[in-house]
Amino acid sequence: MTAQVQRDGAAAAGAAEIRDIDAYMTGLGEVARRAAASLRRTPTGPKNAALLAMAERLEASREEILSANARDLARGRETGLDDALLDRLALDDQRVDGMIEGLRQVASLPDPVGEIDGLRARPSGIQVGQMRVPLGVIGIIYESRPNVTLEAASLCLKSGNAAILRGGSEARDSNAAIATCIREGLTAAGLPEGAVQVVATTDRAAVGRLIAMPEFVDVIIPRGGKSLIERISREARVPVIKHLDGICHVYLDATADPDKALAIAVNAKTHRYGTCNTMETLLVDAPLAASLLPKLAAAYAEHGVELRGCERTRAILPQVSVAVEEDWQTEYLAPVLAIRVVDGIDAAMAHIECYSSHHTDAIVTESWSLARRFLAEVDSSSVMINASTRFADGFEYGLGAEIGISTDKLHARGPVGLEGLTTRKYVVLGDGQVRQ
Amino acid sequence: MTAQVQRDGAAAAGAAEIRDIDAYMTGLGEVARRAAASLRRTPTGPKNAALLAMAERLEASREEILSANARDLARGRETGLDDALLDRLALDDQRVDGMIEGLRQVASLPDPVGEIDGLRARPSGIQVGQMRVPLGVIGIIYESRPNVTLEAASLCLKSGNAAILRGGSEARDSNAAIATCIREGLTAAGLPEGAVQVVATTDRAAVGRLIAMPEFVDVIIPRGGKSLIERISREARVPVIKHLDGICHVYLDATADPDKALAIAVNAKTHRYGTCNTMETLLVDAPLAASLLPKLAAAYAEHGVELRGCERTRAILPQVSVAVEEDWQTEYLAPVLAIRVVDGIDAAMAHIECYSSHHTDAIVTESWSLARRFLAEVDSSSVMINASTRFADGFEYGLGAEIGISTDKLHARGPVGLEGLTTRKYVVLGDGQVRQ
Repeated sequence: MTAQVQRDGAAAAGAAEIRDIDAYMTGLGEVARRAAASLRRTPTGPKNAALLAMAERLEASREEILSANARDLARGRETGLDDALLDRLALDDQRVDGMIEGLRQVASLPDPVGEIDGLRARPSGIQVGQMRVPLGVIGIIYESRPNVTLEAASLCLKSGNAAILRGGSEARDSNAAIATCIREGLTAAGLPEGAVQVVATTDRAAVGRLIAMPEFVDVIIPRGGKSLIERISREARVPVIKHLDGICHVYLDATADPDKALAIAVNAKTHRYGTCNTMETLLVDAPLAASLLPKLAAAYAEHGVELRGCERTRAILPQVSVAVEEDWQTEYLAPVLAIRVVDGIDAAMAHIECYSSHHTDAIVTESWSLARRFLAEVDSSSVMINASTRFADGFEYGLGAEIGISTDKLHARGPVGLEGLTTRKYVVLGDGQVRQ
Repeated sequence: MTAQVQRDGAAAAGAAEIRDIDAYMTGLGEVARRAAASLRRTPTGPKNAALLAMAERLEASREEILSANARDLARGRETGLDDALLDRLALDDQRVDGMIEGLRQVASLPDPVGEIDGLRARPSGIQVGQMRVPLGVIGIIYESRPNVTLEAASLCLKSGNAAILRGGSEARDSNAAIATCIREGLTAAGLPEGAVQVVATTDRAAVGRLIAMPEFVDVIIPRGGKSLIERISREARVPVIKHLDGICHVYLDATADPDKALAIAVNAKTHRYGTCNTMETLLVDAPLAASLLPKLAAAYAEHGVELRGCERTRAILPQVSVAVEEDWQTEYLAPVLAIRVVDGIDAAMAHIECYSSHHTDAIVTESWSLARRFLAEVDSSSVMINASTRFADGFEYGLGAEIGISTDKLHARGPVGLEGLTTRKYVVLGDGQVRQ
């Protein structure tokens, strides 16, 4: 690839209509690749300056953004978007404040780029270590929430990556208004505009091309519903960091402190229903069931949670409906909970191995040995002892920010912060050493 | 997936003929998945015991292995394999010694599984850290060298992964004899036989199925020629850790110590010709060219290295043939070297950005600032200051063993040892904390 100057991609991004999607996306790819080479060399200062300049532009453009969003909402209502989607799409002063605050937080995070780990002397006389560096170009594909545009842009920029962002067509005008602020912030800090590009066409072919340009894009991060993510994973010719479903379990062992068991089981289900780290199945050790299930049922009833139980659960709670095979396989994302009585940790871990989506699973126990076994043996991206599954979150884990939660095993697993957007290269320091 | 007992896969591995490849590979996948669940729980002791038992079995089966290899070699000669392939295929006492020694070395390496990093208290009262755990099931596809069977098996086992190994058809009998030793070693240590399975059919459809079973295989590592690796990367439905070509550069800056420059430039090319970390293009800073190129040419002439140079090189070394565009893009793997005279580090890094395969690139300089720039800005899996590119190797880096060198950016980059065969899950330790 020769370093021929080509700015058509970025220029075309402003055009109202794009006819040749392939050529347009190739242009974005070339611009992003060059911007990535420049960002790799950019120290922390200018990256933070750009983030703070974006925050200022956002503050100054509040009205333009809200009126662009009003146009999106009006179009959404015309085309019959449901209320949940309209709520995700809607911006107000508070949400704009949140975006501004988010930019300032990302600016204040430590820069992961350049960190060198494990530098050690080798018998040959060389020193070998690993340096954290940006991935390069990141493609992000997401749905209605326009604030994702800014979150994704800020995290990619801070980690030294160029970004190509493809939002949902329903947020078209909001995203364009936000993109203007991003571009102005980059320019104000002397960074290349191509560092963050927002795909200006809503043609679905643009997604197909974005996920099939390994020469320009190093990784794709889809954010949205399961069907979007499955389709992208299936069709991508570029590595994908993906987040599929969260069928999370809490297992209450007979050795649990009953008060902690009750508090965690209630919190993991009722703190929020629509989140991926919400418990969907509760496993109760048989010796605990008779005393604890009635208390749990009372607590869930207060929150209006519908219970579905196995036969042993129903022997204690006859009012509960029958859980069928499908219940163990379902991410309800709703005030519904499946309950199964099991015989000890082995049965609990066998259920988890079989039905968990390997997102987050927790045990409540006072037994040192059982806690150690659960930690070692449960193969999920987050494994918890005596804590609510709702803690599985980049902010709660101290990552400072989160681009998503990976349910993959390679590269990044669990909540993905700035570090997940970097890679490590080997560095070798010598004084003229040669191989004998 | 229910935990139904199914041993057909392992049993079929012994069969002489396998008709239904899909069913056969599915059987291997199911067996591997169950073995992986068991290996995840296996402490270091039994894994090391199995490795040492394999070493004993290998020692005891030396004659069977060599006679199986003799059958492969005879068949190879009949079918007209070339000498290089026959050499890679051939085993002798020394190579068997090497395999035995390799097993003992892997047994002596620290076990990466279970290591917990960065455990920190959070304001909520939970502690959060990351625990290193096996990937699960690893599929390895390789060509003629039968010792890869044992190397791959030992590294996967030590890192707690189940392995499905698919060697080249030309090494069929050798691989089967080695597989017997592996199986006996696993059994002697009480580990499941399914921990390492060698695909018993040479039908190419088996590879097609192996790389398309994400439900059973977590990652594919192809080892072999570029065309094999490209085909597998293109067709895989499972993540691939791949090693493509090594077009490595050494840049001699005007600030270099001339003796170090000469020694490194000669070593990086002539230490071995067929390896991926061998220098293929030498970049020489203009002020250094007139004095250094004649000495370099004399040294390369002694080693019989053919030189191809740019016009500025040929102005100093008129005997050198012309390097054309294709030379900058070629991994010679032979005693041939392309030389280009450049104007300073920016021109050198621009050439590297354009032509490097991002495997390993080195600078020779005494300048602190230029060394720092090269380290930060060159985007290759190994970046070196004043050292020969030939050091880019798992053993030289102190990994103790190497399953390959990754030219990917995600997950593992550069030499891949035991750590590259693991992943990290989050662990959360609490005392009843719930999310507020």
